[in-house]
Amino acid sequence: MICYPPSLRHLIRHLSGLPGIGEKTAERLALHLVRSRKKDAEALAFGILNVKEKIRLCSRCFGLSDSDVCDICANPARDPALLCVVENVSEMIAIERSGAFYGRYHILQGVLSPMDGIGPDDIRIEELLQRVAEGDVKEIILATNTHLEGETTAIYLSERLEGKPVKVTRIASGVPLGGDLKYVDQLTLKRAMETRYVLG
Amino acid sequence: MICYPPSLRHLIRHLSGLPGIGEKTAERLALHLVRSRKKDAEALAFGILNVKEKIRLCSRCFGLSDSDVCDICANPARDPALLCVVENVSEMIAIERSGAFYGRYHILQGVLSPMDGIGPDDIRIEELLQRVAEGDVKEIILATNTHLEGETTAIYLSERLEGKPVKVTRIASGVPLGGDLKYVDQLTLKRAMETRYVLG
Repeated sequence: MICYPPSLRHLIRHLSGLPGIGEKTAERLALHLVRSRKKDAEALAFGILNVKEKIRLCSRCFGLSDSDVCDICANPARDPALLCVVENVSEMIAIERSGAFYGRYHILQGVLSPMDGIGPDDIRIEELLQRVAEGDVKEIILATNTHLEGETTAIYLSERLEGKPVKVTRIASGVPLGGDLKYVDQLTLKRAMETRYVLG
Repeated sequence: MICYPPSLRHLIRHLSGLPGIGEKTAERLALHLVRSRKKDAEALAFGILNVKEKIRLCSRCFGLSDSDVCDICANPARDPALLCVVENVSEMIAIERSGAFYGRYHILQGVLSPMDGIGPDDIRIEELLQRVAEGDVKEIILATNTHLEGETTAIYLSERLEGKPVKVTRIASGVPLGGDLKYVDQLTLKRAMETRYVLG
């Protein structure tokens, strides 16, 4: 890097700190920014500053938001009776992409993981129970991931919600669509058998 | 993208304008910036602004620089008698990486390309002749690329430099080190034969 001017060296170093961006890619991006119009490069820089300035957690669902309450929580077209519980924002986005859900979300901001010292007080469980207590929610769909911690969290939540006037459901696990049974692992197949449903 | 707050959507759009960054990668980078420390994200943003503010062309070699004259031109340890002519900054950097050159550079800022309407007045040829006229340069190494335009530019420059008190050389073309003759294209092999040199 000896041959780059200092300002460019600094930019390359910061770019290569981004995930999945190696030094070669960082160089390519930096040289692109040098060549690009000042307006475009500034738009990117100010875009970063703006995100750091504005993005916060929605005070209701703990998703990302520019304001106190996020667009989904503020949208009257989203069914307040349906609440989908996910671990993090990326799972919420995956579900939004599927277009299969028209209710609202609750983002736990993590999963129970005794190995990592993460207990019920470290994630947004109290806030979930609070939302249930408010009385609008009729069904809670537990959509935590299907790994050990996600399953544990789902079981824990279903126990905490026992006796409350809400239906508690879990997203189905099973053979992926377009999948081939002989390539599906045993645990998934076992679950798919156990949770089989009546057709028609 | 409906589920992201506006500030994040804007950032994703600007990131996906970078070369080689698709929308998925832009999302991943944007979410990384949301999670990263404010200090780190700001360092990146200000790094971009700083580069756009500072980077200019060196007034001698037309390479990238933070100041009027670049580090290489200003370095007294670099031999002023040896001048390597390249098309763009990226070729200069490739040569610097090789560690095989201790002279100075002249970056043409392009190549002759009649098809694209780029003639001798559109690249930094006058400035090269001016540097030769100043009398310090003893050898000019033509290191333009070996594609059609690069070769044409090298031939054109060697003609323009005829009769001037400088030695004009061209970087060698031939079989890459570690290469296998049977995989080398015919033109390269022909050139390697024609420009063979005496060993020892």
